Amino acid sequence: METITARNNEKIKYAVGLRREARLRKESGEFFLEGARLCYDAAISGIQITRAFFTPPALEKYGEYIEAVKKVCPECYETSEQAAEKLGETENAQGVFCICKAPPSAEKELTPGGRYLALENIQDPANLGAICRTAEALALDGLIISGGCDIYNPKALRAAMGSSLRMNFITAGDLPAFLAKAGKEGFLTLASVPDSRAVSIKDAGLEGGVICCIGNEGAGLTPETQAACKIRVTIPMGGRAESFNASAAAAILAWELKR
Amino acid sequence: METITARNNEKIKYAVGLRREARLRKESGEFFLEGARLCYDAAISGIQITRAFFTPPALEKYGEYIEAVKKVCPECYETSEQAAEKLGETENAQGVFCICKAPPSAEKELTPGGRYLALENIQDPANLGAICRTAEALALDGLIISGGCDIYNPKALRAAMGSSLRMNFITAGDLPAFLAKAGKEGFLTLASVPDSRAVSIKDAGLEGGVICCIGNEGAGLTPETQAACKIRVTIPMGGRAESFNASAAAAILAWELKR
Repeated sequence: METITARNNEKIKYAVGLRREARLRKESGEFFLEGARLCYDAAISGIQITRAFFTPPALEKYGEYIEAVKKVCPECYETSEQAAEKLGETENAQGVFCICKAPPSAEKELTPGGRYLALENIQDPANLGAICRTAEALALDGLIISGGCDIYNPKALRAAMGSSLRMNFITAGDLPAFLAKAGKEGFLTLASVPDSRAVSIKDAGLEGGVICCIGNEGAGLTPETQAACKIRVTIPMGGRAESFNASAAAAILAWELKR
Repeated sequence: METITARNNEKIKYAVGLRREARLRKESGEFFLEGARLCYDAAISGIQITRAFFTPPALEKYGEYIEAVKKVCPECYETSEQAAEKLGETENAQGVFCICKAPPSAEKELTPGGRYLALENIQDPANLGAICRTAEALALDGLIISGGCDIYNPKALRAAMGSSLRMNFITAGDLPAFLAKAGKEGFLTLASVPDSRAVSIKDAGLEGGVICCIGNEGAGLTPETQAACKIRVTIPMGGRAESFNASAAAAILAWELKR
């Protein structure tokens, strides 16, 4: 294994860039992963790992996890703790890091009869990650992701507890057009809204393929996306609450899709 | 209105202590609230506000919210921005802060036929706050809180979006004993566990009063609490996910309690 000791090493800089900049992730199609378990999850989930960094203490402590990464990664570096310090985002960085290729997610076919959530401009990475974790736990067929959702943000990756590495993501550059096409293919398309006049999700008559759209934490779904859906659905609310947290709404909606 | 300009003012120090220290919150029975809207919510929700601090810019900008606070609060201080700097936790502090009395929550009666979640040692304040917000939105009759849940942590208060100021909290010092007593009074007590052999929550036959217990993020429910419940329930999982996020699980369980 080659060694990296310099903090200003170009490979370290590129990895830090991937961690920090959504734009670089988008342009390169790569993302940064931190933590022994997450890197291991990537390796055994068939994610393409292009480069990995391990500190000497990590090589001793996380031998088994690191072996799995080494098996699939062509470029592994023993990285001094000083250099690795720049890589770690969390307080207790474990000294295991890798760069992964984001699996291609555009122009995938929907599974006929499948159940999907579509996420439009969800901003909070913790929400995004939590929704991904819930979607996997409830065995949804996939998550349809609009442009504004940064699923490979490091915080989102951590909140997802590895589920982002196994989830079937489908990128919809133009979500209303995507929904219109899916509707023609027989999918029931739902716009979830905090509006007591909309149909309760439990009365929406879910049969066959369903896509349920969830909007931005503050602004909700765009009018265009709402217009592209066949039904407006809601989770009936009581009390003085004005809305659900996006990941709580997603949990209830995903549960109803699979109930 | 009296004025505070010194950063080392004792009243400011006490407020910062309430913000930072769970122990001081517990001992004093008071908590600290930050933000114009949250302080306003406290004032109109009948929460006893014992002291409030406003910066000069806040007095101009949040006049309406501050008026509501002044109406119910016996001790209001115009606080220099320098002194208020110590008070603010969030990056964009609005310059509106107050100290509130936590409403008494022990030894309350359960509403016959009511639907409750009981939270045992939920550690993440963001989870606690999100669960509170969901519980209010779904109009649960209350949240039963075990010793290990710090509902007045500032992060929990923010995540709850004001719902903590309106929620019916019931403190259970000894949760297993509380559940045993409720069980004798006719409540169906449920222990939610990530165990595929447990009864699916949708088949649990929820009738009459129900208390559903949710455990710590890592360790789950204690064996004592599980033993004190009549039924072990679960949210069936697919995929390779090992568990739900506590607030996602709470959302699905609360939804089923009220469905």
